[in-house]
Amino acid sequence: MIPVSEALDHLFTLAKPLCTETVPLNQANGRVLAEPVSATRDQPPFSASAMDGYAVPSEGVAPGATYTVIGEAAAGHAFDGTVSAGQAVRIFTGAPVPQGAGHVVIQEDVKRSGDKIEVTDRLGKGLNIRPAGGDFSQGQTIDAPKLLRPSDVALMAAMNIADVPVTRRPRVAILATGDELVMPGETPGPDQIIASNSFGLQAMLRDAGAEPRLLPIARDTMSSLKTAFSMMDDADLLITIGGASVGDHDLVGDVAAGLGMERSFYKIAMRPGKPLMAGKLADGAMMIGLPGNPVSAMVCGQVFVLPVIRAMLGLGQAPAPQNTARLAEDLPANGPRQHYMRALVKDGEISVFGNQDSSLLTILSTANALLVCPPNAEAAPKGSEVVFLPI
Amino acid sequence: MIPVSEALDHLFTLAKPLCTETVPLNQANGRVLAEPVSATRDQPPFSASAMDGYAVPSEGVAPGATYTVIGEAAAGHAFDGTVSAGQAVRIFTGAPVPQGAGHVVIQEDVKRSGDKIEVTDRLGKGLNIRPAGGDFSQGQTIDAPKLLRPSDVALMAAMNIADVPVTRRPRVAILATGDELVMPGETPGPDQIIASNSFGLQAMLRDAGAEPRLLPIARDTMSSLKTAFSMMDDADLLITIGGASVGDHDLVGDVAAGLGMERSFYKIAMRPGKPLMAGKLADGAMMIGLPGNPVSAMVCGQVFVLPVIRAMLGLGQAPAPQNTARLAEDLPANGPRQHYMRALVKDGEISVFGNQDSSLLTILSTANALLVCPPNAEAAPKGSEVVFLPI
Repeated sequence: MIPVSEALDHLFTLAKPLCTETVPLNQANGRVLAEPVSATRDQPPFSASAMDGYAVPSEGVAPGATYTVIGEAAAGHAFDGTVSAGQAVRIFTGAPVPQGAGHVVIQEDVKRSGDKIEVTDRLGKGLNIRPAGGDFSQGQTIDAPKLLRPSDVALMAAMNIADVPVTRRPRVAILATGDELVMPGETPGPDQIIASNSFGLQAMLRDAGAEPRLLPIARDTMSSLKTAFSMMDDADLLITIGGASVGDHDLVGDVAAGLGMERSFYKIAMRPGKPLMAGKLADGAMMIGLPGNPVSAMVCGQVFVLPVIRAMLGLGQAPAPQNTARLAEDLPANGPRQHYMRALVKDGEISVFGNQDSSLLTILSTANALLVCPPNAEAAPKGSEVVFLPI
Repeated sequence: MIPVSEALDHLFTLAKPLCTETVPLNQANGRVLAEPVSATRDQPPFSASAMDGYAVPSEGVAPGATYTVIGEAAAGHAFDGTVSAGQAVRIFTGAPVPQGAGHVVIQEDVKRSGDKIEVTDRLGKGLNIRPAGGDFSQGQTIDAPKLLRPSDVALMAAMNIADVPVTRRPRVAILATGDELVMPGETPGPDQIIASNSFGLQAMLRDAGAEPRLLPIARDTMSSLKTAFSMMDDADLLITIGGASVGDHDLVGDVAAGLGMERSFYKIAMRPGKPLMAGKLADGAMMIGLPGNPVSAMVCGQVFVLPVIRAMLGLGQAPAPQNTARLAEDLPANGPRQHYMRALVKDGEISVFGNQDSSLLTILSTANALLVCPPNAEAAPKGSEVVFLPI
């Protein structure tokens, strides 16, 4: 048995970053920036008023100072002239500060009468001017790779980047296998169940920025599996569910081998989980075979598939993001396999569920964390800090 | 000035949960379950083998016990008969446990020769049987409202729920206003800038489960604003950006009033932020007017708009989710307004950025948190626990 980290390293040797495509700015959120992008202009492009008020020359601004208002500058409408001593321009937030002005006195700090204003005793300290290029200068870059968030989208808009180079979404074909499976909405026979892992994984992969699609369920025959495999089309990654162990009815590996896959079985020291199959098919697509137990499949999705997706997206080779919390109760010692225990984190405290059977989707659905209990970990008392994966 | 919580309460009086619609299971992730759903069957629907092995009667299982293998049960293929004393059925994970059997001896714990097996000394403790209904029983429900995650989708699949009742996505029309704005990709005039808040808010709202769309930029004239307002069509919520204060060029309120809105200005004790406008238009749609400063708009989006969206989705009336971290440096005392400081959280420690000017999108894009500094908070030393909003 190999540790989780070693299995993940094997997977990373198979997962290569995908190519770059260009999307319009309003589709860029949640995508991974593939190349640095540069501001095409300064922001603000001119010295801009930060407030509504009066733009006046820098010198001599003090309570009691008086000015004649000679014009107006609004956002989008510069004042086309120069402000001289004793003159003021009515100015609004975002407007260019006129030539000759170096101070915006906010409107609450003046008394106006006709075209005359007088600065009152309230006069604040600030100049209320945003200097040109104060946010960014032309040519300033956003570095790649970067998972783009709403504030990045706003920033790219301000930089006038209308088209954004992003990594192509990994296309993932998901193949549930087994004579016992029927699709949701169908009427199962007495010895059948509903395919569930494929739907859960599809949701998980879509959240991670992949483009997952479900293949038809494959039956436990070579011909059915071959047909299903042939439907993966241009997928970058094929995920099979079930049939990845070494039982008499586990034909997935044989079919994959027939498609040119140099298959590796990784017997991983983890729970829940079974041998994980992985390799590269002759056409270059990557394949990962997940166990069929519902919770095992979803946990292996978190631990192995999501890091592979992030690697394909160009975000580097790193295990699933972890967090820490304090044990709400004592935790017993662990056996020789790393245990991903279904758990609930609340207010910084983590409790594991009593029943950790790998078939229980009700428990997984209630959990919001997988407590990572390392191999042969000693019993840990309540209050100990432990590591978990948020799910 | 009113506190943030009071402004939010005002908004909640305007935000009503939307109606229910039905989506196919593979579209349910990230949606809000609107009504409880019930399992249409037990899971497992029969006592199922948890392992590959041999199903034998409960009595007399011990090292040295011998059995004749009389048949096979695989997933999807029950053994059609009864197992009597001295008999075993070859069984695979997920297969129904045959009548008469009450124990699955795993294949690693037997020695097989022809159709005979003998239990070895390795015999483990477990029965390796998952009882019928052990995960859930027919009629067991998933309660609503619930934001559905991948594990919920897997669970609903197992429950054979092919169609899922969810709250309709709030339709949000986003209207950027101002003569100074042009769209990304256009060439701005010398006193113009690129519309950015609308793009950032669109991304933020889409992440929150809304269906946002951008209206054309409205100019600072009554006729342009009226035209833009008329294009909101069937939106549940209109968000205007800019023109929501009381400057001479802020016409948004006037146009909204003309459309029957009883408008309220909330002068809120917060930074960054300006008066927030909110109300209900004559056709029943809600409107929120946000300030035009880039960072102010995005922060008000987090603090006010996202909770409104969650309320419309039926997730209740609650402020933006908070978290805690420890100060990486001393924090100075705060003034009379609640300050949402752009900050970076790393390994449980939070640092605020030196420049908190509300025009700086570069800083917002680098930040991953808004440190919430309450009104008149005293200076806090490094190491103090503080509250932040993850962004």
